Amino acid sequence: MTRRSQFKIPKIPEMTVRRLSVYTRCLLQLEEDGVKTISSQELAERFSLNSAQVRKDLAYFGEFGVRGIGYYVSGLKAALQRILGLDREWQVALVGFGNLGSALFHYKGFAKQGFRILAIFDDDPAKCGKEVDGVQISPLRDLPREAKARNLQLAIVAVPPESAQGVIEKLAAAGIKAVLNFAPGRIKSGKDVRLKNVDLSIELETLSFYLAQGNR
Amino acid sequence: MTRRSQFKIPKIPEMTVRRLSVYTRCLLQLEEDGVKTISSQELAERFSLNSAQVRKDLAYFGEFGVRGIGYYVSGLKAALQRILGLDREWQVALVGFGNLGSALFHYKGFAKQGFRILAIFDDDPAKCGKEVDGVQISPLRDLPREAKARNLQLAIVAVPPESAQGVIEKLAAAGIKAVLNFAPGRIKSGKDVRLKNVDLSIELETLSFYLAQGNR
Repeated sequence: MTRRSQFKIPKIPEMTVRRLSVYTRCLLQLEEDGVKTISSQELAERFSLNSAQVRKDLAYFGEFGVRGIGYYVSGLKAALQRILGLDREWQVALVGFGNLGSALFHYKGFAKQGFRILAIFDDDPAKCGKEVDGVQISPLRDLPREAKARNLQLAIVAVPPESAQGVIEKLAAAGIKAVLNFAPGRIKSGKDVRLKNVDLSIELETLSFYLAQGNR
Repeated sequence: MTRRSQFKIPKIPEMTVRRLSVYTRCLLQLEEDGVKTISSQELAERFSLNSAQVRKDLAYFGEFGVRGIGYYVSGLKAALQRILGLDREWQVALVGFGNLGSALFHYKGFAKQGFRILAIFDDDPAKCGKEVDGVQISPLRDLPREAKARNLQLAIVAVPPESAQGVIEKLAAAGIKAVLNFAPGRIKSGKDVRLKNVDLSIELETLSFYLAQGNR
């Protein structure tokens, strides 16, 4: 337990957390470009953000700006990484090793942020027992044992829609506390598991919105 | 041209557009569950949204609530679908047919929302000329011709990071106005192309945030 555990953090909107990730990426770019300090206005202009929103989002976690200077780029980046849990490694399970599972396994962005896929589960007999880049593919029945042995904390689910609900229940039973689910459909999780459903068509819809507006 | 073209819509924040997609999904669920009308408060409670935000987001596009009733679920859903351009079909190009490209091609969510992948581009000689579910895989040099012939409007880019910038420039030159890019890295587009970069690790970070907070 650190001293910070004495302070109760208020309920943070998920959109705020999402924006913290975006701010972290902006600060990384600024750091790469050699920028040392930046005001919320400059940050907002450079990355098409809303400066009032930036200040409000950061205010949940403390006072980061310095009067007359703005934010120290490296310091704020490190603080946000710590808040987002990116100052440590997470042991991740991947369930489903079809095209999407395979693409996610090889996705460079995860490892860069400290997410390590240490176990793959797939019931396909053609895949079970094989190794990919040193990670073994196991049948789902091995999940409880593997989850314990490898201290798996997070899971990424990339199974067909009809299998997703059952898989998520098995992950919960194995003590996994957070699940990123790519299977479409209505999936529910118990209160012990934080479930995040990724809907890739939402990303396309922000584009069709602008195209549709442009055509009117 | 419809009558609506006479009204200039103010600049809409991208997060608002994203939330419109979320609201549309909530309304679809309510419709499936037989709910006819709902207030912004009920909508917010049921789907963990912010009711003031819901009202503010919708206010950009008109007056949808009815005093004493709330929103008509089917009516609001149809209005949002029209605003998001989901009341029509979009012709989509997919560039890159590796694991991720293949997974995206088979992703059920896109077709459901009217996004039709009509052309696949990949320079791998082992893939070129082949057909997947009736869609031909062509070399990238055929892009200008195919874009015209099939009236391609949107593109999904799932190529390795080092190829992404070049691909996006070729798409722009072929007249494609909107690009959803899955390749990580710093990619830039000209002003004629709306570029949306998908960063899958952001989704994992919202989970590590909650795990990290819980552990403190």
